[in-house]
Amino acid sequence: MAEKIRVTVWNEFRHEKTKENVKALYPNGLHAVVGEFLSATGDMEVTLAALDDEAQGLPDEVLENTDVLVWWGHMAHKEVSDELVAKIQKRVYLGKMGFVGLHSAHHSKPFRAIVGTNGNLQWGRNQREVVWNLMPSHPIAAGIPDHFIIEEEEMYSEPFYIPQPDALVFGSWFEDGNILRSGCCFIRGAGKVFWFQPGHETCKSFFNPYVRRIITNAVYWAVPSVDGQSVTDKCPHITEPIIGEFNK
Amino acid sequence: MAEKIRVTVWNEFRHEKTKENVKALYPNGLHAVVGEFLSATGDMEVTLAALDDEAQGLPDEVLENTDVLVWWGHMAHKEVSDELVAKIQKRVYLGKMGFVGLHSAHHSKPFRAIVGTNGNLQWGRNQREVVWNLMPSHPIAAGIPDHFIIEEEEMYSEPFYIPQPDALVFGSWFEDGNILRSGCCFIRGAGKVFWFQPGHETCKSFFNPYVRRIITNAVYWAVPSVDGQSVTDKCPHITEPIIGEFNK
Amino acid sequence: MAEKIRVTVWNEFRHEKTKENVKALYPNGLHAVVGEFLSATGDMEVTLAALDDEAQGLPDEVLENTDVLVWWGHMAHKEVSDELVAKIQKRVYLGKMGFVGLHSAHHSKPFRAIVGTNGNLQWGRNQREVVWNLMPSHPIAAGIPDHFIIEEEEMYSEPFYIPQPDALVFGSWFEDGNILRSGCCFIRGAGKVFWFQPGHETCKSFFNPYVRRIITNAVYWAVPSVDGQSVTDKCPHITEPIIGEFNK
Amino acid sequence: MAEKIRVTVWNEFRHEKTKENVKALYPNGLHAVVGEFLSATGDMEVTLAALDDEAQGLPDEVLENTDVLVWWGHMAHKEVSDELVAKIQKRVYLGKMGFVGLHSAHHSKPFRAIVGTNGNLQWGRNQREVVWNLMPSHPIAAGIPDHFIIEEEEMYSEPFYIPQPDALVFGSWFEDGNILRSGCCFIRGAGKVFWFQPGHETCKSFFNPYVRRIITNAVYWAVPSVDGQSVTDKCPHITEPIIGEFNK
Repeated sequence: MAEKIRVTVWNEFRHEKTKENVKALYPNGLHAVVGEFLSATGDMEVTLAALDDEAQGLPDEVLENTDVLVWWGHMAHKEVSDELVAKIQKRVYLGKMGFVGLHSAHHSKPFRAIVGTNGNLQWGRNQREVVWNLMPSHPIAAGIPDHFIIEEEEMYSEPFYIPQPDALVFGSWFEDGNILRSGCCFIRGAGKVFWFQPGHETCKSFFNPYVRRIITNAVYWAVPSVDGQSVTDKCPHITEPIIGEFNK
Repeated sequence: MAEKIRVTVWNEFRHEKTKENVKALYPNGLHAVVGEFLSATGDMEVTLAALDDEAQGLPDEVLENTDVLVWWGHMAHKEVSDELVAKIQKRVYLGKMGFVGLHSAHHSKPFRAIVGTNGNLQWGRNQREVVWNLMPSHPIAAGIPDHFIIEEEEMYSEPFYIPQPDALVFGSWFEDGNILRSGCCFIRGAGKVFWFQPGHETCKSFFNPYVRRIITNAVYWAVPSVDGQSVTDKCPHITEPIIGEFNK
Repeated sequence: MAEKIRVTVWNEFRHEKTKENVKALYPNGLHAVVGEFLSATGDMEVTLAALDDEAQGLPDEVLENTDVLVWWGHMAHKEVSDELVAKIQKRVYLGKMGFVGLHSAHHSKPFRAIVGTNGNLQWGRNQREVVWNLMPSHPIAAGIPDHFIIEEEEMYSEPFYIPQPDALVFGSWFEDGNILRSGCCFIRGAGKVFWFQPGHETCKSFFNPYVRRIITNAVYWAVPSVDGQSVTDKCPHITEPIIGEFNK
Repeated sequence: MAEKIRVTVWNEFRHEKTKENVKALYPNGLHAVVGEFLSATGDMEVTLAALDDEAQGLPDEVLENTDVLVWWGHMAHKEVSDELVAKIQKRVYLGKMGFVGLHSAHHSKPFRAIVGTNGNLQWGRNQREVVWNLMPSHPIAAGIPDHFIIEEEEMYSEPFYIPQPDALVFGSWFEDGNILRSGCCFIRGAGKVFWFQPGHETCKSFFNPYVRRIITNAVYWAVPSVDGQSVTDKCPHITEPIIGEFNK
């Protein structure tokens, strides 16, 4: 790969400033930790962005130079401007950018708009999670065993009102009796979307080597690959037939 | 079926008032024709609605008493209010209403928002279309042969930037060299969505018996069937474990 | 529905003869219990069949008069003749019969051949199972709540090497840390297939009202619906063009 | 990629010996032409195999050293031994080999067994085909425009009784009024399968640069990627719980 993948890791970055236990885990924001392990691949050029940055962290010159946008948001979903959401959605649909949603991004505006879902699920206390590998042949599952255990993660549960994923790569078990479709690929427009469950702000999941591997795999997978098509943001009027002649 | 299915057929209803050739085909609006063959089943109670009616045709008391919403729009997509679109989307996601989009509804606001697509495709002149039955086992294909011919329909073509349908029931051939995934089921939230290609305002497709059968089948299929679940418009917090005990 | 659905419930029927605990639960075979609750709908005409019956329970006159075949097998999968498997597979593919596989039928010859899988999964001791409803809009989920608990069932676990289902209706949680895609629809040829996890021979799952409802729903869903197509067991040579003329 | 992908191109290799027009196009067999453009990537080590070779071209030492098996068969499908088919199917399911079926391989024994289909479709005379790109974001579509024209190819038509593909990458238009789902990905077991329509023995499709690019892309995509899982050919009995303790 001659050129590096341009990854922007967007974080709401509020919990880390207000909650001591979160600050202790992620003093520079959880996006800094995610960005660090992505950078460590050597294949990615990482930009960090936060809600309270200028232009909500995504001025046009950043967004237009992003190949894959990684997103974490939670308490401030509603603050993200509809205009920005529309720009993100459009860029994904046109095959210019992939989107990787982490944890509570299931309820974020861009995830909901891009995928076509209200993102609703049930949730509960932190507990043990077992992540099961449902599709070992998928590139996002490379290097991941049959299952792995996360000692503490926020419980998310079905019913999760997402569309059936194009590829359901991971499913999760939670101690209290719940399960979740926890690693889901969606093809939307000419773009690729992945959502992954682990990553609560009070948990260490972003330090788990399998979680890191999965997020890293997902970024590689989500890189736009449209290189032979003329994807446009309109419905082109065809005035010449592909085959044959008009009014024959 | 003890109670009738409550179907609302929504039509932009502009072309029929301004273009002579359209008015000649559909003097009372194409929704009147669609409503008539749906009513003829004896199983459906049909309400007609139009963009220029009060509350854009869908005041709350109509929407909240609709089991299946059939939608046709074209030149005035942008006039449909975002507030109404949000209400429609929410009602489908909560499993209270099915949505059947006809023809140029592929680019309508509700279809795009519900499904998660920009709805973009290519289009061309009116021509012969052959509709192929790709999934004979699907209830929407009941009574439909291997293929049937529509003598004149507006050409719609791939690339059509929809998500992969949960069921791809029909595909179409067009004279000029184009094809389209033309009959598509999408499961969204707890609701069901079907989109079907034929139905240009200058064509007689809504008089074609197979087109009528397919739209009728689609309405039966899209009726909400959530009767054992507590679907809500939020992410419920579970405070009691399904199995086991907290803090054990 | 004027005519009754002709359902044949096939059971290996060996455990019930040799193991006391199984005999105590299902003295006439578990197929008798399944057949009984299906008959109780009033819509189904049920035939019971067992491996040790003549023609392995499915002579041609039975098979050819079966609309939906329900299958339970376990220790004697290999004894089922390849010839019979080929007949079953063909009948499903031609849209003449649906197939509902129960529990250990995941590893049966007909399920594997029809669906295209080795049917492999992991399994463990009997324990509590929570069945989660992943697709409330699906007809097989009608009447089923968000989740229900089975106090004792054999544990089955991912990785389950099935193709991605056309509809993933249920998922299951097991006490020991395992999950499973436990209620799966597959469209194969012009026919419909459903597989459901509960139903171990030492457990009472076939007496559970939700399990009964799901199996009953599945039989209704799997009824062949090909009524407009000419499905044949060959590749027809088309000698006349659909549109246009040869050698023009 | 440190090591080369080991590709075996299997061809029935009968038409080329008996029909003058086929021999003229493919004097060394069409597999030789396919093998040549795959070799030209520099990333693949290609082995040619034919039905009339020893062990039907696939002795164990060849099969067990194949990462991707490319298959073309037509008139002699029935001659391929069931034992060989079982070996191929098993190797794909265990994630040790990908399978790329070309043209009439839709009706080959391995394709049918692996995917779970009778492979039936309709077919007609040679004519113009337009291949449409339905999923530009898919790696197999890389470098392929919206559509391309093949001047002469055997017509294949829906209804094609395949399962819904995990990814429907291409669809085709044919002059006489027919369409086909013509480029289909199937995930089976831990392995990957792609089938592509062009490649009739009397046509030059294997010289078409887009056809070559697609087949080449498909081989890269189908390479086994199971590197973290313990895929076995049985149903392992789990005797220790993942979480918790037995009989607690």
